Amino acid sequence: MDEPTWKPVVPFERTFDALYGLEILEAGPEVARARVVVRDELKQPMGLVHGGVLASIAESLTSAATALAVLGEGRMAQGLSNQTSFLRPIMHGTIHAVARRRHRGRTTWVWEVEISDDDGRLCALVRMTIAVRDLPDGRVQAVDQPR
Amino acid sequence: MDEPTWKPVVPFERTFDALYGLEILEAGPEVARARVVVRDELKQPMGLVHGGVLASIAESLTSAATALAVLGEGRMAQGLSNQTSFLRPIMHGTIHAVARRRHRGRTTWVWEVEISDDDGRLCALVRMTIAVRDLPDGRVQAVDQPR
Amino acid sequence: MDEPTWKPVVPFERTFDALYGLEILEAGPEVARARVVVRDELKQPMGLVHGGVLASIAESLTSAATALAVLGEGRMAQGLSNQTSFLRPIMHGTIHAVARRRHRGRTTWVWEVEISDDDGRLCALVRMTIAVRDLPDGRVQAVDQPR
Amino acid sequence: MDEPTWKPVVPFERTFDALYGLEILEAGPEVARARVVVRDELKQPMGLVHGGVLASIAESLTSAATALAVLGEGRMAQGLSNQTSFLRPIMHGTIHAVARRRHRGRTTWVWEVEISDDDGRLCALVRMTIAVRDLPDGRVQAVDQPR
Repeated sequence: MDEPTWKPVVPFERTFDALYGLEILEAGPEVARARVVVRDELKQPMGLVHGGVLASIAESLTSAATALAVLGEGRMAQGLSNQTSFLRPIMHGTIHAVARRRHRGRTTWVWEVEISDDDGRLCALVRMTIAVRDLPDGRVQAVDQPR
Repeated sequence: MDEPTWKPVVPFERTFDALYGLEILEAGPEVARARVVVRDELKQPMGLVHGGVLASIAESLTSAATALAVLGEGRMAQGLSNQTSFLRPIMHGTIHAVARRRHRGRTTWVWEVEISDDDGRLCALVRMTIAVRDLPDGRVQAVDQPR
Repeated sequence: MDEPTWKPVVPFERTFDALYGLEILEAGPEVARARVVVRDELKQPMGLVHGGVLASIAESLTSAATALAVLGEGRMAQGLSNQTSFLRPIMHGTIHAVARRRHRGRTTWVWEVEISDDDGRLCALVRMTIAVRDLPDGRVQAVDQPR
Repeated sequence: MDEPTWKPVVPFERTFDALYGLEILEAGPEVARARVVVRDELKQPMGLVHGGVLASIAESLTSAATALAVLGEGRMAQGLSNQTSFLRPIMHGTIHAVARRRHRGRTTWVWEVEISDDDGRLCALVRMTIAVRDLPDGRVQAVDQPR
């Protein structure tokens, strides 16, 4: 069996993504989609969805899509930077995220993620830069460990 | 009583900040500090703290500190952009955040947030731009509602 | 005559845009285009076009397009942030920039700019946030003057 | 002679840095400084220094400082992303830039650059991420060439 096997350190149902309710609908190498149902636990005190939830969705979606694409080559993916611009608040319904890959380099992938509400209005833009590194014998490796 | 009163729409103990365990230690107009204790529910499957948690901490800390400073002037604060660079993974212990205000303008405040681990190593840098807007009769107002 | 008149402080042919050779081809409120012919004076010592040239093109193009759209309302535009990701070097030919407006708010506009080479390859992505402010009697006004 | 020799493709006096007048005062591995004297050719039509000039200064300064530090190891440096926030306009005098290295990883260095005016007022903040790559036989190499 040549397929690399990867065993999660934390089972998905106990991760942060499970905590805030991430549902990945598609995780292809060029387009990825996810959604999260809004509930009070995702809001800040003024009743708006917390900006960190939107940043988290983009982070997970693009990391997962990149990882799925490179794992077969014995490589891993990890977020290098997350640039989120907040355009319009979300207060209820479902958060919809669509990620499009804009760059596939040897060591970094760049994705742009659009986050919208149930009415299709653009609520946030996220540019994610994902580092792609060789997987050292299946062990977890820091993105860019200082020396 | 001239002091503006502000009643949260969602009580703190039901917010996203409560969900991931934010503790704000100091929320001054120039320096603010917070911490979060690491647990599995804040991690991604590889066992590292999810990048979205770090982005969320910076978002809440600087929004809260700005809001506290401007609420007395009848103004409100809301995140405009969050730029997080991930430098080193955090796997256990406590996440420590220190925010320093770098700009106080009429309509935007800019903060830089350092996130470090229990050994004092810098793990992420976040630049937060917070929009400051007039509070319309105490009602929640979108940051920058499209027309 | 209701049309606001705006007299440049520095004539275009002496500006920075003239120095590096910006040609704006289209400056609409939703899409804008520009190009710059590569020459040694735009390069860094290794022979690649300097990243600052790409950032400058996006800055000017989106500022100009926003200004043209809001000047008629007695408002002005000024860059608030410029986030440039460098994907592929440009070494010769012409630099092509296409800007698409993604958000039109009361106080900020957000544009995404794609910069490509003569072969249509994506070389940089720029997210520009432009502040829109009331024009005080036609005088130049700082974006967000600290108090 | 073990010292790597590096011959510029474009001589400094013909580069973009020479065009806008960059003077690097210090280019250490942890702190770097530069300045640029303001003249009309660095301005936009409203009479303010063009934001692209500030982005360019940060780009050159941190690329040069990183390159000097890694060239001895047979490695090269190239800008990966430039995130500039504009805080206060500069209209005359000298532009002063101080860069501080915040992260030194195997494949990326992160710097934060403060840009100020003659009165020491903070006018822009730039976070630069610099990619560090092996130098292939002294030849110029794209940052992250798509496959």
